[in-house]
Amino acid sequence: MRIVVLTGGIGGARFLVGVRAHARRIGAEVTAVVNVGDDVRMHGLQICPDLDSVMYTLGGAADPERGWGRVGESWVIKDELAKYGAEPTWFGLGDKDTATHLVRTTMLNAGYPLSAVTAALCERWQPGITMLPATDSRLETHVVVDVDGERKAIHFQEWWVRYRGDLPTHRFVFVGADAATPAAGVLEAITNADVVLVAPSNPVVSIAPILAVQQLKEAVVDGPAPVVGVSPIIAGSPVRGMADRCLETLGVEISATGVGALYGTRAENGLLDGWLVDESDAGAAVPGVKTKAVPLWMTDEDATAAMVAAALELAGVG
Amino acid sequence: MRIVVLTGGIGGARFLVGVRAHARRIGAEVTAVVNVGDDVRMHGLQICPDLDSVMYTLGGAADPERGWGRVGESWVIKDELAKYGAEPTWFGLGDKDTATHLVRTTMLNAGYPLSAVTAALCERWQPGITMLPATDSRLETHVVVDVDGERKAIHFQEWWVRYRGDLPTHRFVFVGADAATPAAGVLEAITNADVVLVAPSNPVVSIAPILAVQQLKEAVVDGPAPVVGVSPIIAGSPVRGMADRCLETLGVEISATGVGALYGTRAENGLLDGWLVDESDAGAAVPGVKTKAVPLWMTDEDATAAMVAAALELAGVG
Repeated sequence: MRIVVLTGGIGGARFLVGVRAHARRIGAEVTAVVNVGDDVRMHGLQICPDLDSVMYTLGGAADPERGWGRVGESWVIKDELAKYGAEPTWFGLGDKDTATHLVRTTMLNAGYPLSAVTAALCERWQPGITMLPATDSRLETHVVVDVDGERKAIHFQEWWVRYRGDLPTHRFVFVGADAATPAAGVLEAITNADVVLVAPSNPVVSIAPILAVQQLKEAVVDGPAPVVGVSPIIAGSPVRGMADRCLETLGVEISATGVGALYGTRAENGLLDGWLVDESDAGAAVPGVKTKAVPLWMTDEDATAAMVAAALELAGVG
Repeated sequence: MRIVVLTGGIGGARFLVGVRAHARRIGAEVTAVVNVGDDVRMHGLQICPDLDSVMYTLGGAADPERGWGRVGESWVIKDELAKYGAEPTWFGLGDKDTATHLVRTTMLNAGYPLSAVTAALCERWQPGITMLPATDSRLETHVVVDVDGERKAIHFQEWWVRYRGDLPTHRFVFVGADAATPAAGVLEAITNADVVLVAPSNPVVSIAPILAVQQLKEAVVDGPAPVVGVSPIIAGSPVRGMADRCLETLGVEISATGVGALYGTRAENGLLDGWLVDESDAGAAVPGVKTKAVPLWMTDEDATAAMVAAALELAGVG
């Protein structure tokens, strides 16, 4: 069996640990198609937060406390850059992490596409799945906000890390999406998939930028594989992160039903065949989408693998 | 009084501490024209070893034990790059140092010349002198060697750091020197100088690459200021570094007389009016050059400042 997972970073990485565990049990292959909308160049380094979260988490090197970056990280460079007055100072650039960015940036500057660079980095981390960026093109999520009374677009990282989303926020723009094409291997993976899972990632800034790559979205929506999503909202609150702030901006109800409806049914050019919600949201109903309620708290690998098993069953391939 | 010093890195930085001390006593301004032949781009970072040695030393942040780089340095990035298998692994890329390289590389990539970048970095370090790279152009010292029976040209850093100069070595080539022009401010500093000092740096790979910038050399040789050199050889041995390996390659005698003759007299289109040698080399004689013997061991700031006072006296401006 071939499983494709559309995923963001931290929450998605945790979900992928369960996908990998279940896939090992059933002998399935897993390909993660990872959001790159958070990617940003800072201090000359190309930083890919979601790819790194997935890579470090599956490679056993993520910091479980902080939720992002490397375990045992140090912060010499961040401190030094601040002493030089080098902007931005609000971004958490760890020393270990910086080495990853240096290797990536050097390869990108040498002309390798991000997909090839990701594969090269994964030779060290051995994530046990295939990791593909959604696109090798430049695609960045920017956020239209009011700062000090002035309306402007800032990079998603600035909105997220510097302002914690706490700004009057009008919309999210996927800069470069019009011209972006799926990264090498993405269309093949989707076309050959037996099932496509949508991780319980932020629908607005993790999943939407992936689907903003038109050919990628078409491959999923028009493709042969059933698509099952896992709700990132449990009992009206995001599993993690700031999905609520993002959904508010879009005027979407912060509920399993709200997000399911945002994704929509494939019967009407939407995304979903199935929608897995938490037991506490058993009443959630999305027109045209098969809904099932199971425990959705990713407390450990086994609990998460059980969610995946339920998702595959809902897709009719379990 | 305006003092210009032609200088390399570590030994030159130590000399400059004495120059600065003496200049403060007599109210003189100091401009260091620093070798860039050692500069190299590694892991996407533009590294300027001599500029950094001077900047860190005069900024009070150099490691006195190791002789180069930052005091209290850590090595997380170097270790991580090695774990990625990222070449080269033989270069000592410290974490603190990397922040300097990141700021520099970001500014260079944004289009600032190295002289402007150096001035910006010095805002933090306040070296107390004006620091100028010899050139804003690309100029790199490469070394023609035999490696595993094959003749090839390698970067000076590879020869120096990786092989410790321990290869059959044929010659040094200053790549880019033909097209290089003096960095912003260099010609003005030399033209307006009351005296030009040649630091006791490696004549072959620190001073020669500076003078390989033709307009710079002409400004010194044809300029109004007297030129006094300080011997980097004491009693037949280099004060520090591997000047002996370099001089051997050129067939130059490893002595105060040998280096003095290599620099030559200004009367015959050479560099020197005066040549300061160590007491132990009191017999050194370079035709056409006034020679004086004083203690040349840079044991501390005062001893070094006394050397500088002697050099200015020899130049007739002390």
